[in-house]
Amino acid sequence: MIAKKSDKALNIVKSVKIFATSANLTRKDVDVGLIYTDKDTVSSAVFTKNSVKAACVLYDIELLKENRNIKAVIVNSGNANACNSNGFEAIDAVTTSLSGKLNIDKNQIFVASTGIIGEDLPYEKINASLDKLISQTDNSSDLFAESIMTTDTVKKQYALECSFLGTRFNIGAVVKGAGMIHPNMGTMLSFIVTDIKISQKMLDSALLYAVNHSFNRISVDGDMSTNDTVFIMSTQEAKNDKIVDENELYRFFEDNLTNVCTNLAKMIVKDGEGATKIAEIVVVGAIKEKDAEKIARGVSNSLLVKTALFGQDPNWGRILDAAGYSFEHLDVQKLNMFIGDNLVFSKGKSTNFDKKVLQEYMKNEEIEILIDLGVGACTYNMWFSDISYNYVKINAEYHT
Amino acid sequence: MIAKKSDKALNIVKSVKIFATSANLTRKDVDVGLIYTDKDTVSSAVFTKNSVKAACVLYDIELLKENRNIKAVIVNSGNANACNSNGFEAIDAVTTSLSGKLNIDKNQIFVASTGIIGEDLPYEKINASLDKLISQTDNSSDLFAESIMTTDTVKKQYALECSFLGTRFNIGAVVKGAGMIHPNMGTMLSFIVTDIKISQKMLDSALLYAVNHSFNRISVDGDMSTNDTVFIMSTQEAKNDKIVDENELYRFFEDNLTNVCTNLAKMIVKDGEGATKIAEIVVVGAIKEKDAEKIARGVSNSLLVKTALFGQDPNWGRILDAAGYSFEHLDVQKLNMFIGDNLVFSKGKSTNFDKKVLQEYMKNEEIEILIDLGVGACTYNMWFSDISYNYVKINAEYHT
Repeated sequence: MIAKKSDKALNIVKSVKIFATSANLTRKDVDVGLIYTDKDTVSSAVFTKNSVKAACVLYDIELLKENRNIKAVIVNSGNANACNSNGFEAIDAVTTSLSGKLNIDKNQIFVASTGIIGEDLPYEKINASLDKLISQTDNSSDLFAESIMTTDTVKKQYALECSFLGTRFNIGAVVKGAGMIHPNMGTMLSFIVTDIKISQKMLDSALLYAVNHSFNRISVDGDMSTNDTVFIMSTQEAKNDKIVDENELYRFFEDNLTNVCTNLAKMIVKDGEGATKIAEIVVVGAIKEKDAEKIARGVSNSLLVKTALFGQDPNWGRILDAAGYSFEHLDVQKLNMFIGDNLVFSKGKSTNFDKKVLQEYMKNEEIEILIDLGVGACTYNMWFSDISYNYVKINAEYHT
Repeated sequence: MIAKKSDKALNIVKSVKIFATSANLTRKDVDVGLIYTDKDTVSSAVFTKNSVKAACVLYDIELLKENRNIKAVIVNSGNANACNSNGFEAIDAVTTSLSGKLNIDKNQIFVASTGIIGEDLPYEKINASLDKLISQTDNSSDLFAESIMTTDTVKKQYALECSFLGTRFNIGAVVKGAGMIHPNMGTMLSFIVTDIKISQKMLDSALLYAVNHSFNRISVDGDMSTNDTVFIMSTQEAKNDKIVDENELYRFFEDNLTNVCTNLAKMIVKDGEGATKIAEIVVVGAIKEKDAEKIARGVSNSLLVKTALFGQDPNWGRILDAAGYSFEHLDVQKLNMFIGDNLVFSKGKSTNFDKKVLQEYMKNEEIEILIDLGVGACTYNMWFSDISYNYVKINAEYHT
């Protein structure tokens, strides 16, 4: 049994306290957020694959090698703490001060930043805000979700109350951004809390699976930031037998964690810069998953497909073209393509589909594209947004 | 000694006759073009790597395996002859009719098409226009260049009169399109004529080199069409000792052919849909050329870099970010980046560059970006356009 929640998501694990305030890093009401628990945790994270990494990402990678009992996460917006001259100095100063105030070890604090690249982090401002931050009593996941926003237009949260053979556990998460928003804003930060009892190894495994099936399958503009981070903290308070291998409960947890991440990933696509629509491309019938992935990514990242989507045009030619240059062994003679329920291309030729029906379908806010390669049994899917005038406007008019 | 020509480019080889007329395939004045010579030729071509290929491309690939003495090239705009049901039937009908009228073999005719994908080619219209086409006496490269245009806004031609140790030879070429223009328009067609005396093997080699250093180094929107074709025909009339190996004359020819193709490639970028600027990214100091290429392509295809360029914003953060996700071993601690003459990023940190000077520089129509990886001696370069409101407008407002 599962119950969904789309606000106060991080509050779903009661022993985790949520804080947010202003450190005057931005013009927003809140630009520093804190997640804190006095419980011992098992924590894990997945980071950007960009070889240019922010100082916070480099710091956290080393931190998690040393300690997985993370008790606090401090996040700021307005500055990415990347490619600047005081990155590690800033992290040291903030974690030193915060650990004293929370009475925890420095190495129990995870850090994250999102904002402008290349400028020094004014960490004195963050440190000056810490007393105000930790004395705040709202315990508001909503306010935290706001504190990490950059060009996001809506807060993004999702939570599940799960029950497996009578054992209850919870997963709550917030996310920000996508679209490598604004010039140098970090793309995507997600923070997940759960109370499930699980080993470090199995938590790592579940998080990686969930991220690979959600956040790694979305495309707004195909860019990838220096700061992308997905973090999960488990307080181990649930009454389940501790998960230590791939048993049924593990599968159930992994499914639900993936469900949470997929819902957040789709929220990111919908809130992509200037986006008016979300589309899902599903590629089936491939010999290898990698083949299906190449095609799904090619179609998702094609500017011509994205602009056709914005123009509400059922342009199967652009989709087929993108599939063709993305996968070198594509055989159109075996390929079927559907837009919604409409078969538009079949085995080398366009079909006599009803153009009016399809044009009506293209007006929907959610569009489904299915390509059946007809040669195997592997599949891959991606979610992507369209590209509108506003995407160009937002990204061209911002000035460094 | 080299003299340049930017009109009547194909007329530079006198024995080659140029024709163009209307077959009523489009609303343009001319939509069918013909290149014809009564000389024996050595011919070569390079085709799209898209695994979805137009019927004309599939036909030409087989044709050139059998015969390199091509005497005629017939091209139409308005229909790509791709993914339809009468592709080969259409080619057979047109080449049969044209070979009779020109009194040459069917297998001496090369075919090319550009236009909408998925619709049958109304080849009766082309056949009905052939008498008018071949009786036309303008011999106009300009008109031919017009006949192959789709959403191009200007005709694109370039020619060189070359002299090497007293031996003269000529290279003339036209090109159309880029930007995977309109929904299903074939991207790029180029036709080159020369009179140099050269073996088939060496002509293949020179063309491949020239294409790899020009047309394959441009990015408008990163899409690649089903119809891309670069064709070269040599009448062998020049008085040079026939080129049969990589001697000095070969190098000189290869350089000049590359020069012609580079000039045409840059014209394509400048005429990219909605483009307002052209930028060149040069990556130097790489261990392998492939590394430099990955970065150059990543930066060229980044939507965020392209929109920043349109916004005239010296946004080095977006460039570095794109470099970072394009090449997994990027070391920012060794990297220097210049925009124009301005060092903006050096060895892990942004510099104190003069923002006003750089903002002024970004107003230029041609922008140079140089990334020195500082680890090796290999280089790669790409030319690319910006992405403007008009790109989205052109591509969203077209309806199938």
